[in-house]
Parts: sequence; C-alpha cells; structure tokens
Amino acid sequence: MQSHDKYYGKGGILKDSAQEILINTAYKYDTQEYDFLLKELNYVDLAYAIMLIEQNIIPENDGKVLLKGLLQVKESIDSGQFDKESILGDIYNLKTAMLEEKIGDIAGWIHIGRARREAINMAFLMHTKKDILDLLRVLTRLIQEIVKKAKESIDVVMPDYTYLQHAQPTRFSHYILTFVYPMLRDIERLLQCYDHFDCSPGGSGSVNGTTLPIDRERLKVLLKFSHIAYHTRDAMWQVDIPIEAASSITMMMTNISRFTEELLIWNSTEFNLVQFPDSLCRASVIMPQKRNPYPLAYIRGIAGKTIGLVSNFASYGKVISGSPDNRIFIYADLPNALKMCNGALTLFTTVIHDMQINDQQMRKYAEDDFIYATDLADYLSYHFSIPYKQSHKVVGKVIRTLIESHAHPSDITVQLLNDALIDIVGHSIDIDDQTLAKIINLDRMLDARKTPGAASQKEVELMIDSIESSLEEYNNKIESKINALNYDDLIELAKKRSQSL
Amino acid sequence: MQSHDKYYGKGGILKDSAQEILINTAYKYDTQEYDFLLKELNYVDLAYAIMLIEQNIIPENDGKVLLKGLLQVKESIDSGQFDKESILGDIYNLKTAMLEEKIGDIAGWIHIGRARREAINMAFLMHTKKDILDLLRVLTRLIQEIVKKAKESIDVVMPDYTYLQHAQPTRFSHYILTFVYPMLRDIERLLQCYDHFDCSPGGSGSVNGTTLPIDRERLKVLLKFSHIAYHTRDAMWQVDIPIEAASSITMMMTNISRFTEELLIWNSTEFNLVQFPDSLCRASVIMPQKRNPYPLAYIRGIAGKTIGLVSNFASYGKVISGSPDNRIFIYADLPNALKMCNGALTLFTTVIHDMQINDQQMRKYAEDDFIYATDLADYLSYHFSIPYKQSHKVVGKVIRTLIESHAHPSDITVQLLNDALIDIVGHSIDIDDQTLAKIINLDRMLDARKTPGAASQKEVELMIDSIESSLEEYNNKIESKINALNYDDLIELAKKRSQSL
Amino acid sequence: MQSHDKYYGKGGILKDSAQEILINTAYKYDTQEYDFLLKELNYVDLAYAIMLIEQNIIPENDGKVLLKGLLQVKESIDSGQFDKESILGDIYNLKTAMLEEKIGDIAGWIHIGRARREAINMAFLMHTKKDILDLLRVLTRLIQEIVKKAKESIDVVMPDYTYLQHAQPTRFSHYILTFVYPMLRDIERLLQCYDHFDCSPGGSGSVNGTTLPIDRERLKVLLKFSHIAYHTRDAMWQVDIPIEAASSITMMMTNISRFTEELLIWNSTEFNLVQFPDSLCRASVIMPQKRNPYPLAYIRGIAGKTIGLVSNFASYGKVISGSPDNRIFIYADLPNALKMCNGALTLFTTVIHDMQINDQQMRKYAEDDFIYATDLADYLSYHFSIPYKQSHKVVGKVIRTLIESHAHPSDITVQLLNDALIDIVGHSIDIDDQTLAKIINLDRMLDARKTPGAASQKEVELMIDSIESSLEEYNNKIESKINALNYDDLIELAKKRSQSL
Amino acid sequence: MQSHDKYYGKGGILKDSAQEILINTAYKYDTQEYDFLLKELNYVDLAYAIMLIEQNIIPENDGKVLLKGLLQVKESIDSGQFDKESILGDIYNLKTAMLEEKIGDIAGWIHIGRARREAINMAFLMHTKKDILDLLRVLTRLIQEIVKKAKESIDVVMPDYTYLQHAQPTRFSHYILTFVYPMLRDIERLLQCYDHFDCSPGGSGSVNGTTLPIDRERLKVLLKFSHIAYHTRDAMWQVDIPIEAASSITMMMTNISRFTEELLIWNSTEFNLVQFPDSLCRASVIMPQKRNPYPLAYIRGIAGKTIGLVSNFASYGKVISGSPDNRIFIYADLPNALKMCNGALTLFTTVIHDMQINDQQMRKYAEDDFIYATDLADYLSYHFSIPYKQSHKVVGKVIRTLIESHAHPSDITVQLLNDALIDIVGHSIDIDDQTLAKIINLDRMLDARKTPGAASQKEVELMIDSIESSLEEYNNKIESKINALNYDDLIELAKKRSQSL
Repeated sequence: MQSHDKYYGKGGILKDSAQEILINTAYKYDTQEYDFLLKELNYVDLAYAIMLIEQNIIPENDGKVLLKGLLQVKESIDSGQFDKESILGDIYNLKTAMLEEKIGDIAGWIHIGRARREAINMAFLMHTKKDILDLLRVLTRLIQEIVKKAKESIDVVMPDYTYLQHAQPTRFSHYILTFVYPMLRDIERLLQCYDHFDCSPGGSGSVNGTTLPIDRERLKVLLKFSHIAYHTRDAMWQVDIPIEAASSITMMMTNISRFTEELLIWNSTEFNLVQFPDSLCRASVIMPQKRNPYPLAYIRGIAGKTIGLVSNFASYGKVISGSPDNRIFIYADLPNALKMCNGALTLFTTVIHDMQINDQQMRKYAEDDFIYATDLADYLSYHFSIPYKQSHKVVGKVIRTLIESHAHPSDITVQLLNDALIDIVGHSIDIDDQTLAKIINLDRMLDARKTPGAASQKEVELMIDSIESSLEEYNNKIESKINALNYDDLIELAKKRSQSL
Repeated sequence: MQSHDKYYGKGGILKDSAQEILINTAYKYDTQEYDFLLKELNYVDLAYAIMLIEQNIIPENDGKVLLKGLLQVKESIDSGQFDKESILGDIYNLKTAMLEEKIGDIAGWIHIGRARREAINMAFLMHTKKDILDLLRVLTRLIQEIVKKAKESIDVVMPDYTYLQHAQPTRFSHYILTFVYPMLRDIERLLQCYDHFDCSPGGSGSVNGTTLPIDRERLKVLLKFSHIAYHTRDAMWQVDIPIEAASSITMMMTNISRFTEELLIWNSTEFNLVQFPDSLCRASVIMPQKRNPYPLAYIRGIAGKTIGLVSNFASYGKVISGSPDNRIFIYADLPNALKMCNGALTLFTTVIHDMQINDQQMRKYAEDDFIYATDLADYLSYHFSIPYKQSHKVVGKVIRTLIESHAHPSDITVQLLNDALIDIVGHSIDIDDQTLAKIINLDRMLDARKTPGAASQKEVELMIDSIESSLEEYNNKIESKINALNYDDLIELAKKRSQSL
Repeated sequence: MQSHDKYYGKGGILKDSAQEILINTAYKYDTQEYDFLLKELNYVDLAYAIMLIEQNIIPENDGKVLLKGLLQVKESIDSGQFDKESILGDIYNLKTAMLEEKIGDIAGWIHIGRARREAINMAFLMHTKKDILDLLRVLTRLIQEIVKKAKESIDVVMPDYTYLQHAQPTRFSHYILTFVYPMLRDIERLLQCYDHFDCSPGGSGSVNGTTLPIDRERLKVLLKFSHIAYHTRDAMWQVDIPIEAASSITMMMTNISRFTEELLIWNSTEFNLVQFPDSLCRASVIMPQKRNPYPLAYIRGIAGKTIGLVSNFASYGKVISGSPDNRIFIYADLPNALKMCNGALTLFTTVIHDMQINDQQMRKYAEDDFIYATDLADYLSYHFSIPYKQSHKVVGKVIRTLIESHAHPSDITVQLLNDALIDIVGHSIDIDDQTLAKIINLDRMLDARKTPGAASQKEVELMIDSIESSLEEYNNKIESKINALNYDDLIELAKKRSQSL
Repeated sequence: MQSHDKYYGKGGILKDSAQEILINTAYKYDTQEYDFLLKELNYVDLAYAIMLIEQNIIPENDGKVLLKGLLQVKESIDSGQFDKESILGDIYNLKTAMLEEKIGDIAGWIHIGRARREAINMAFLMHTKKDILDLLRVLTRLIQEIVKKAKESIDVVMPDYTYLQHAQPTRFSHYILTFVYPMLRDIERLLQCYDHFDCSPGGSGSVNGTTLPIDRERLKVLLKFSHIAYHTRDAMWQVDIPIEAASSITMMMTNISRFTEELLIWNSTEFNLVQFPDSLCRASVIMPQKRNPYPLAYIRGIAGKTIGLVSNFASYGKVISGSPDNRIFIYADLPNALKMCNGALTLFTTVIHDMQINDQQMRKYAEDDFIYATDLADYLSYHFSIPYKQSHKVVGKVIRTLIESHAHPSDITVQLLNDALIDIVGHSIDIDDQTLAKIINLDRMLDARKTPGAASQKEVELMIDSIESSLEEYNNKIESKINALNYDDLIELAKKRSQSL
C-alpha cells in the first residue's frame, strides 16, 4: 500500500493526504523525536486489547489476532526493524501501520473508544515514571556518597565562607552536608510529583468518557498505575504535572550547580582545597599543563539547561485546554531532561567519590585568619555582660589594628583587647593570655558548637545517622516502586490470551 | 546621633561609613522594598530576647529593658511612625536603630549569637507562611464557587472542544470541573511547600552554630514553627524553597490562565456562551458600545507575570552557597507575587460567581454539528463487528457528503450510511431511521457516558461530592494552620517578662 | 591503536584516560549532540592549515600532508563513514583522530597555537550564520505570502477585535498586516545579530594571543567572515551573542504565536472566518468528523519552545568568563532552535497560502453589530460641538436601549439618539435618518479612515507598496550574504596547495 | 461628585460602576503601580489638545479651556497633590478626573479619536525612551571607568584563568577589557531598541485609524518622536519591543554578572587579587572581622532579576493581538527594571573606580605556575619541526615530573626536556638553559603576543584607543538624543495657545 493511502482519515473525512511541508516538519517531529515511547505505547495497546476482549467490546477472534499482531509489533520495536515514515503523522499511526501490515483491517479495532492522545499520553506517563524513579535512585546514591565523604572527613577542619570570605570555623563534613538536606527535600518533591504521574488516564474516551463498557480500573491495573486520573477531561489535558517535574529537577540541579561551582573554586591553585584524579580531568588541546575539571563544568551546564524549562513548559500550558501543543513537545523534552540530569548526577557521584581533600590546607586557612572573632566577642559579652554590639566593635577594632600592623591573627593579646575595651566600653577586663588563647583555639571553638545542627563532631554524627535512616526508608520506597513497574506479566497474559481465545 | 555614626561596624572593623551611591541603590532597596517584614522581624526579636533571658545569655535587667524597647518599637512599626533612612543599610539595622534610640546601648544585646540573615530570614518565612495560607484559603473558595456553578448547571449541555472545534457532547458542569482537579493538586503542592517554609532556622549562630547556650527549640515554639531546619548551614542558605513556592504558583496560574482564556473566547459575540455583568466590565474610552471583560485580561496577565519567576529565582540560587544575593531580592519578590495571585484568585471567584451561562446557545451548538460522529462509529463497530478504523471512515465519509451538500447534521439517513458502508466495508447494515435518530440523540449520548469520570449526570455528581469532601478536609487543615499563626501570646509573654524580671 | 591511547593528553600531563561514566555522559554529549558541526569544523581546519603553511609555522611538506589528510577527512564526513567514539571526548578530538588515522603524527600540527574551543566556536559561528540567513530567507517568504493575501483580500471587510469583542470596522488586509510590521523589525534584529556572529575569533591563541606569527586576517578571509572579533579573550568567551539570537527568535515566534492563535479562533465553527484544506488538516483517530488544524497547534508549540531559551542561555552565561559550559550546550541548542523555527515558518507560509477567507461571514459580523458606535459619537462631537465623553455616553445609552429591546444595530433611529441627547446633553440635534444611515454605513466608515496607517483602501495599498520595497532591499541583502558563504574556493585552494607544495 | 459616578461609561453602556474586588485588585494596580507615567501622560494630552485645536476638531474656546486645565493638572502632578482613587480604574481615568474637577465637562474633549491605550502607551514609550538613554549614559561611564583602570594597570601581569585554573600569562588590563567589548555590543543593541521605542503610535484612532482629521505627524513632532509607527494596529499592539528591551538588559547584566562574580573570587583571602575600601563594604552583624563586598552581591542579584524577564514578557505577548494584558504589566515592570539596572551600573562604576589591585600577588601567581607551558611547546614545534601534539605531550610529561617531585615551575631544565623528547619524539634538541629561561620568561611571553587583540602592551593600547574613540561617538549620539527629549517648548506652546485663542 502506498504510504499516502495509509494516512488516517483519508477517504473518510479527508479527501487528501498531507502536504510535503507538513510531513517534513510537524509529522517528522512527531514520528522521530519521541519514538522512544514506542515500547510503552505497545504495552498500552496490549493492555487495551486485553480489556476490549474482556469487556466483549471486540469479537473474540479479532481480539486474538489483534494480540498476536501486537506481540509481533513488539518484536519489531525491540529489534528496531521498522521504518519511521513521517507521512504517517506520529508514533501512534506509525505503530498502527506496523500492526496493519501484520494483521490487516483487524488492526482497526485498536482505535475504538480511545484518542491517540490517550494512548501516547499513557506511554509518556509510563516512560516518565521510570525516568523519575531512576533519577530518584541515582539521587539517593549521590547522597550516600556525600555522606560517606562526610564520615571520612569528620576530623577535617576548615573555614566556613560567606561572600567567599572566611567566616567561622567549621568541619568539611558539616559543610558538605549543606547540600544533602535540599536533596532530601528533592526526594520528597519528586515522590509527590511521581504520584501525580502515577494516575492512569486510560479509558477516557475522547475526552469525556464513552458509551462503550470500557473498564478504566482494569487498564490501570494492567499498566501498573496506582491510581486513576478520575475526571476524564482533566486526565486528557493536564498541564501542571510536566511543569511539576520540570520544577523539581530545576530545584535539584540548582543545588548541585552551587555545589559544583564551589568545588571549581576549591580546586583552583589559589584555594587548593580539593583535587581530582586524571581520570576525571580533561587535557587542554593547546596548554600542556592543564588538567581541567571538565565534569564539574558539564554538570553545572546541565543545571543551566534546566533553567528555562519551567517557563517553557508553562508557555506550552498557557493555551486553551483542548490544545495538543500543550503536551506534544513535552513528550520528548521531559524524558530527555530527566535522563540528562540522571547522567549528571551519576557523574557527580563519581566526582565526589574520587575527590581528594587537602585537609592540611583547609586547617591552615582556618588558623591563619580571624575566624575566632565571633567567639571572642561572644566571650566578652557572655562573661563580662557587655552588650554584643560593643563587643563586636571592640573585637573589630582589635582586628583592624592587627591588620594594619600586618600581624598574624594569633598575635592578638590581652593588652590590645583591653586598649580597645577602654576606648569603646570604658573599662578593661581581667583575663590572662592563656585564657585568650584557649578562647580562640580552633578545636575548642568547634567542639563547643553544640546547638542542634551545628558543626561539633557530635552534631555532625547525629545528622549523618539521621540522614542514613531517612535514606534507607526512601530507598525501600523507590526500589519497591521500581519493582512494581514490571510489564512481564502483561506480556505473558497477552500471549496466553492470544492463544487461548 | 548622626546617621552615619549609627552605621554598623563603623569604629570597629570599618573606618568609614558607606558611600552615597551604595546608600542610594543597594541600601535603599534593602530598607524600602521589603519593609513589610518589619512586623514579623520584631516578633523574631521579641522571641529571641525572651530566649536569651531564659538561657541567661544576657543579664536579667538588660533583658527587661530590651523587651520594653522592643514593645515600644512594635508601637512605632504598627503606627508607621519611623524614618526609613537608607544609610542604615537594611530593615534589620533600621529596626535596631529604632531600638537604640529608645533604650541606648542595651539594644546591642539583640545581635548576640545571630546573623542579620537569620533574623530577616525568619521574618520572611513567617510572612510568607501567612501568604501561602491566605492563598490556599482563596484557592479553596474559588473551587467552592466553581463547584457551585457546576451544580447549578448540571443540565446544561454543550459541545466539548478540541482545537476549538466541536468534538463530543458534554455538560458545562463537566467542562468546568476540568479546572478544579489541577487546583486540588495545587493545594497538595502548596501544602508541601508550606511544610518546607514551616521549618525554623532560628538559633543557627552565624551559619554553623554557636558556643552560646542558644535554645533552638524554644525559638521554634515561640514563633509558631512546626519544625526546626536542623542543619544550620542548610537553614541559612536554602535556595530551593522559594523556587518551590514560585513553581507552585506558576502551575496554579497556568491552569487559571487557560480557563480565563477560554472564558474570553466563550464571551465573544461569535461564541456567546457566557456573559458578565456591567460591574465586571470596563468601558472603552473611545468605543461607546464596548463592555470589556477586563478582569479576565488582568487575571491572565498575572499568570504571565508568574512565568519567568522560577528562572529568576533559580538564577538567584545558582551562585555559591554563602551568597546573600540568593535571597535578598526574594524577600520582596515572593510575598508580592503571592499577594498578586491572591488578588487574582479572589477576583476570579467573583467572575465565576457572576458569570451568566447561555445554556440555549450551548445546546444549539451541540445540536447543530456532527458531534455524534464518535458515538455513531462506536455503534457500528460494537453492534456490527466492524473494526473501528472502518467505521470511522464510513462515518467520516457520510459527514463529508453531508457537508458538501450543505445538509444539516440531523439530515443523516440510514441510506447514506449504508451507501458508505457498502463502499468501504462491502456490506450494508440493518437499522431503521428511528434507531439512528436515537443513537445520535444528544441527551442519550450524554447519559450513556458512564465510564468513571465521564460526562453523565451521575458521574458529574459523584465527582462534585468527592471534591466537596476533599475540600472540607483541606479547609480544616488550612484554617487550623492559620489559627496557629497567632503571635498574641508572644506579645503577652514579652509584656509579662518585661515587667516581672 | 586502542581508543584509550588516542585520548588527548594521555602520557603527557595525564597518566590515565577518562573513566567510563565521564565517557558515557559528558563525552557522549560532546561527540554526538552537535556533530553536525563537523563539516564546518573541517573547513576551519583547512583554512587554519593553509594559514600555517603560508606563515611558515609548519614545514612545507608536513603542510601538504596535512591538507591531503583534511581533504580525505572531508570525504569521510560527507559520506558519514566514521565512528563516533565517545571516548575521544568531543567532535574536535573525534575529527583529529580521523585525521591521525589517515596521516599519522603529522596530524598533530593542527593543534598548534589554537584551543579546541576556538576551532569548535568558529565552526559553530559558521554553521549558525547559515542558519540565521536561512531563517531570514523563509521569513521574507512568509511576509511575501501574507502581503499577497492582503492584496487579494483588499475588499474584504471585517470587524476588528479587541478583547475578542467587535471593536471597529476594518479590512482583512489591514488586519493581517499587523503581523508583518513586527516581522520587519525581526529582520532588522536578526541582521544585527548576524553581524555579531560574523566576527571571526580565529587566531586567538588560547585566549590572549600567541607568540606565533598567526595571521588572523587571513583566517577571516578564508572562512568568509566579515570582521575579526578583535579582543581575543572577548572572542573566546562571548556569552551575549547566543542570547541575542535566542531573544531574536523569541520575539519572532511570539508574534507568530499570536497570529496562529487568532487563526485557530477564526477557524472555529462559531467564528468560521477562515478555513484550511484537507491537506493541512489532521484526522482525529477517534472522532470521524474532525479536521484538526494541526499545523497551527504545531507552530504555536514551537513558539512556546522558544520561551525559556533566553533564561536558559543567560544561565549558561552567568558563570565566570573562562568556563566552557557557557557555550557547550549552545552548540546544539541554538542551531536546533533555528532549524525548528525555520520549519515552523515554512509550514506557516503554506498555511497562509492555502487559507480560504470566508468574506461573507466577515462582512456579516461587521454589519450585525454596533461597530459604528465610535464613528457616530465622533460625528456628534465633531459636527455638534459636544465634548466626546458626552457623545460617548449618548451613543452608549442608545446602544444599551437597543440591546435591551433585542433590536438589530441597524434599528437605530434619530428619535432614539435625540432622546438620549436630551437626557444627557440637554438638547437634541437636527439630522435625518438618511444622514444617520450614511454615518453608520460600513464602507463609508472604512473609506473615511484616512489617517496614515489606517484601514482605508488607499492606506493599505500604500503600506503594501512600502513593505514590498523594503522586502526587496532585505532580500538582496540576505541573498548576497548567503552567496558569500560559499567555501568551494577554500576547498579548491586546499587541493591546489596540497599538490603544489 | 461621588467617585462611582465618575466611573467612565456609567450611565452610557454601563448601568453599574465596578465591584469592590475589581477596584481593589486590577484597578488598584492600574492606578498605583505605574503612576510615574502621569507626567508624560499629561505631555501627551497637551500635545493632543494642541493638535485637536489646530485641526479644528474641537471648538477654539473649549480648546483654550482644555489647555488651561491640563496646565493646572501639570501643577497637581508635579506637586503630587492628588488622590489615587482606585475606583477610577487606571491612571488615564485618574488624570482625566483631575481635569474634570478643574474644567468640568469640557474635559470630555480629550477622549475624542483616541483610545486610553494610545495615550498610556505614548507616555510609556516616552518614559522608557528616557530610561534607555539614561542607562546608555551610565553604561558609557562604566566603560570609561574600566578603560581608565586598564590604562593605569597596563604593567600589571597576572595569570589568565580558564576553569579558574592558571592558563597563560596576561595583563590585568587585557583581562578587564574582556568585559568592555560585550558592553559595546550592548550599546548597539540598546540603540537599535531605542529606535523601536522612538516611533509614535499617536493618532491611531482606536486601532485602525479614524475619520477625524487627526494629524499624526504633528503629534510625533510635538512629543519628540523621530518616527511614526505607521501601521495603526501594529502601533497599538506591538509585543516585540518590550521583549527587545528586556533581552538587551539581560545580555548586559549577564556580562556584568560574570565580572562581579570574578571580582568576588579575586577578593577572597585565598586569591587576594583585588580589594575594596571600607566605604564599599558592609560589616557583618555577628562576625566582627568581616568586611563584606556587598555591592558585588547586590549587582549580581540584579542580574539574576533580569533572567526570567524575557520569558515573562514573551508570555504576556503570547496572547491574541487585541489583548490589553500584553502591555499593562510591562508599563511598570520595564521602567522599574531599567532603573534598577541603572542603579546597579552606577554602583559598579564606583566599585571599579575604588578597586585596589594587588599587582604583586598577581605577578606571583603568574610566576609560580606552569603558565609557560604553551609557549614552550610552541617553541619546540616552531623551532624544531615537531608536530604540536608531540610537543604538547613532551611538555606535559615534564610538568608532570616536576609536580610529582614537588619542584618549582622554574626548576625546569634542558635535561628534563630532552629526557621527555627522547622518550616521546625519539630525539633530543640542542638548546641551553639560558635559552630555556628566556623562553619561559614572563615579560617576554607577554611582549611576544603580537596577534591582533592579544595581551601585548601595544595591542592593549591599540584597543584602548579604539574603545575610546567608539565611546566618544556613542556619547555624542546619546547626549544629543537626551537633549532632544526636552518638552519645555511643548509647555510654552500650550501656555501661549491657552491664552491666545
């Protein structure tokens, strides 16, 4: 049969097949850019055919032929042995043309009671569900790797930075856990988003139901959805859930972007806080000395790629409800974005695993600067009842004096302190230099940070325990959902039915 | 005291106060654009002072004076009687300058153990929590109004549209519930987002805790947070949660945008499906006949305003973690956006309430077109075992014939049908004209749509019941959260302590 | 040779080749997603090799071999006969591996004095220049088609719409020219953008020049650039120009989006103003009667796809200047976006060409409504010295009366007018019903719109002339630029040199 | 008169005034958020009144009263003495209510032949034209300041960075000029954008002209526009030009964002390349030692604020053409964004002016690393005919050896080089250690970078000259345009006419 004669509707409502330019633009897009959905699309058809048979909507023998045909189509799809003729219009028609080739007119039963949009939409949801779960899985692995690093480096002391300036003493382990907490929220958000993708629109008729005895519940079960997207018109035209997925990954990648950005800075010769092995560096083509941390740039780039996605998807959605363009581009864009993020996270997990920490350098920066300033001012206020703003001014002035005389931070003396106190508060205090030295001692300052969530060893260990126990729970949930997405029994059932009928 | 002398840090680490250009740009922004947070900021300080006293971090008498001062500052804020001197740098310093003016150096205690970022951040979270709950409240009211409209119009029949073309028969009530289901998901998303805003960063020290005996739990309780944002550095530098709020409202407004867009179309002379009263129309200045549905344009515009917000917030967040610019602009932008959406939803609730439905016109469009086509093809397939693609072609051809002869859709005959059947399937069928008329009868088609979530009266009523019961649950949750955000007892406690000490 | 041994830098600064995960994510991206640049990349290498020979930077004989090798590589690229091994890292290394395979170590000369970024960047600019010109070409064709339609429909009268409500009488030709004027501005913007892409970064060394006698001017000429991007570091790290291209197409597509959206509305049964042939419609799989204007939905979707692109590209650019991620993703994203828009415009040109205008329906809507209101109020004010707000009120009141009594717009009488005048202005006027009929006559109203740019036939014709003359000028400019981008002489020169040396 | 009675259209087409919720949302927005346009709006009315008089569209005496009234309104606006009653609906009606209060019904003439949208749109364009020119002015000043810095630091040597790793030797002056070249392109883009704002829509009738003898040319001249936006419907509904302005500033701020980001890094203790005076630093409230470079964070934040603006504006524009929401929000958003960027640039100019460069540290980093690697490999290839990939490998290997033995970069010897050469290329070369030292000498490497646009002193000076001459030209153009936007003569003319009539 000529391709143009296979064109749906030709001879019916349409006199002509499509023009070349339509085939070469829109139809080419719809047959090629999201053809990875063909696999799930065939599951959808198999389940639909089984339900049609069970409900006596189609004749038994035709049903048997239909299932046989669809199982043959599965072979073709799995082996990639088929043409992607743009003339057919989209992957749905592409697939049914394959079916027609195998079983002739009986293939025409597959269209009963169902819009193409429903079928592709189902396939899209099933595919994306898998992508979301896979992403959740690599996200938990990344967290595990960061937590492992935090455990290993519990003794590593470094300055905390604000404005990229030395702020207060911290632990490297406390620092990197900064990025884990948003990831735990990412997991929550992705799981909620998953729930919204886990609602079957199957059996919606065109858009407001059908007079045929379609069984929506059966479709849901066969295709491993947890819920039915109840209102059929909502089910068909939802615009929120792809935006929800897009925004979930935007948040996730924004967090990772700032982490990679910091690692790029820590990796500079000037900072020299972390290093990466050759197997994660790229040589410059021109500069023989360069070992470029290309993975970090790549990962940050992927983050940039997600910014704009929500605007994009929201723009698709900002059209009246019965418009196909609110979803057609998302069929390709969302799975591609999820897979790209998956790759970025997997790569980042290796980056974290292989990262070497320069603990001596970290400690040195912490020791060679005035990061004791807050603790000293706290001491003055707490022990000598000086309102903090005054203590702050006193310590600030002492540090200014030390800086102006090019002294080392450890050169601070009780004398200097008392000079400033007299000048600003009007009286001196009675402490000795040993006490002063103790106050500004790095390890003491860290151990004394005992507020919940602070940088003391005990608190960091508590947080690690807590994260690990959350993770275990999330992991179980994710793995159990992944296991549920197995369509082998559907295939088995289709095989059995195709023979037994 | 000269303004410049009040400049924080001057005389301490800083020799000079700020330059004019810094005052006139950044500082002007930080003192004026989110000054609505001052109210909550003072609650934060009151709670902080109470905790400092309870933990013996500050002397009892100083604490008493401090509380008195803060209560006086509350008066000034409530009455709006204070200068917004940009020189002070931001609302935090503005407020502490007010405090200093009232109680002198003792005001300096308020800074102990706490970054300005923590204080403003707390105020921002508290303010935004209220904004989110208020938005949730108006969202539930909007849903109630739509559901009410759906109930009233349960008998109103109209054509469903895809591509703005007549598709299948539906009920107006089924149609408008399309927009309710995404709103229910919006509620879920906003509630999850609320939970993330409901975590107190209070007591984080600068960023990794403090050596002072700060009581984080107490701060949480006093300021009505449900949880503590445990990891102190995460608590200080979260970039995900404003993005989460922004994306939640983007989804919400995208749904509302398409609804308003459709109402604008339904309101055209050509469609004439809905009308609005004069009190919701705006006159044209030049064209005397115009009654413009300005509210719809305004609401859609607000939706457009939210698109871009996620990109914007994600861009703020895509900087290294210790950077203040990841939050300063959001202090103003997010509350403003939430309030704007609140207004749009409230206005839209009135629009829905006052909208008149032209039920005769709706029915006429449904009757004067071929929206029976699917049901007829279903009938052919289901009752005469013709694969659907064939039935589709048959019915399509009949309709093409009717269109070409300028016949009315109801002019379809068994003869025409059988001609097409013979031509395409090779045989005719045995039905009479009465049966045919019955198949394509509008009310029958609707009643027979019995799949779950379909447009039959029973299903629509079921959905209305289900929505109403969800709504009640959500309403209780929202109102109980709103009630919890009452700070009167904090004020009482502060008053009591300021006297009793 | 093992793939891993071909890895650039291995054995030099790098001990190891890349890890699998790096190869399977970043390197896979960089070898596969913008491999369409390979063709131009080889032109860049050919020109570079010629320049190196001319400047005696490489030995004559090596140069001859190098050119021969590159010409062989051209064959491989043209025929698509080569592996895309991700291990090589990116298309640059992929291509030089092909070269090495053909000519061995001499291939190593191609890297002298040049970063991989310069080479790929050049190829990207060359490729994108072509894409921009191609887009400009189809944009001018689209304008021509719209202008042709405007000419053909100069007599077609319709109501102008604001808020989708009947506003004033207009011509269809005036209406569709609305969309042409922004397109003329699009041409200007795209031409300015083209100029920024037409600056050669060739010969920048790594980033701040080189000590070798590289000839930048020669590279520019050989590769058909019009200018040199002078400052070498700017040349290497420009982030503005991809954003400029993205924003240019965003503006272009936003204009086209609103046009397609209006055509979708005009195409509804209710409006019935325009129709499209079967060859531009898509059948519904389920609804036999549907002839969906899928091209319009597709084109509008492409417009949605461009929204978000500027945020995306700006996010890439919002990193410190020496970061590769500010460009790597754009290598694929920008050409793909330009090609997608090109397809959308080409398709839209056919849509316009094939669109049938329902001129009777258009006129009917114009006649059956109160679109004469402004002209009538103008008349009252202009001829009877009544301040316009009063005339507006008078006419408004008359129309309200007519509507309330369900009268036709043409039922307006002098009596009704005078009643309202007496009520509002306090006196009547002296005109007869014929005069009134003349005032509100559709054709008179249109002919009398003589302000520049208005809807009178004369003005519309003037605008058409003016657009056509602009178009001719633009066309000449675009075609001459397209002709200039011919690299045949470069190939010829390379062939000659490869033999003659 | 009661506010509600002043409501436009009431008593005419509208029976009722607006509902409270409409007044408190949309109308509040339209009366308060862009009220800064009132000044220009009155100029627009004055010019319009003068034209109406000249064209005899309104009676002479009424015209005189009208002008007098408008001049009185000018006083009220200038002094800020007027109510902003939301009930009136928008700033247009607000202003005409002021006029009515002063001159009664004669005020009603101002509405003849003109839509509110035209009037506000004109005011918006005039206001934005000024904002764009002001921005251009501060942009040129910023460039001047950077160029001045470049001149002063012509001798300052530093490492160039890619991936934040030492790349090659450069000059600080060459480095900072990186950011000037995009600014020159910004100027071009803003000037083209300005031209599109400089087209008067005045005299468009409602949207397709008018039958009144309106003089569009006269309006253009009186209001200092350079061109007429010819097609009246385009003139009324342009959506591209605000997007163009938004994208122009997005590009500008993206460039500035990366510059500020680098300065934040250069300002860290670890890099210590630049420093800022106390008057540009902000003290931490808690940490006494901190001198935070707040201006840089603020400026970068403003850049983030512009990302998302194009999506936002394009979303407004993605609605059918006659929709007011495609512009109403932009009336406030665009001027606010332009002013915010203006402030950021002015602040940044001071930051650059006051920035101290640590030239010794810069040179030290350049000397203490292997940034000579490229030049050495170039030398090997150029002087000893070794294909570059081999030289690259040789030098890479030598450096790896030096790093592994913890040697200083200057410890490289001919012996080490020859060892690697023998190993990789198979032979040694004949140079002495003095020659080697000369090759890798920092100053020699820089002076020898003679390619156009490179980092040699001569080339940097050439570029500075060229920039300065471009700047002068741009400055003249900008200042002449600013001078042209003077409306004093319009006021004078109005005064004269109001008396002389």
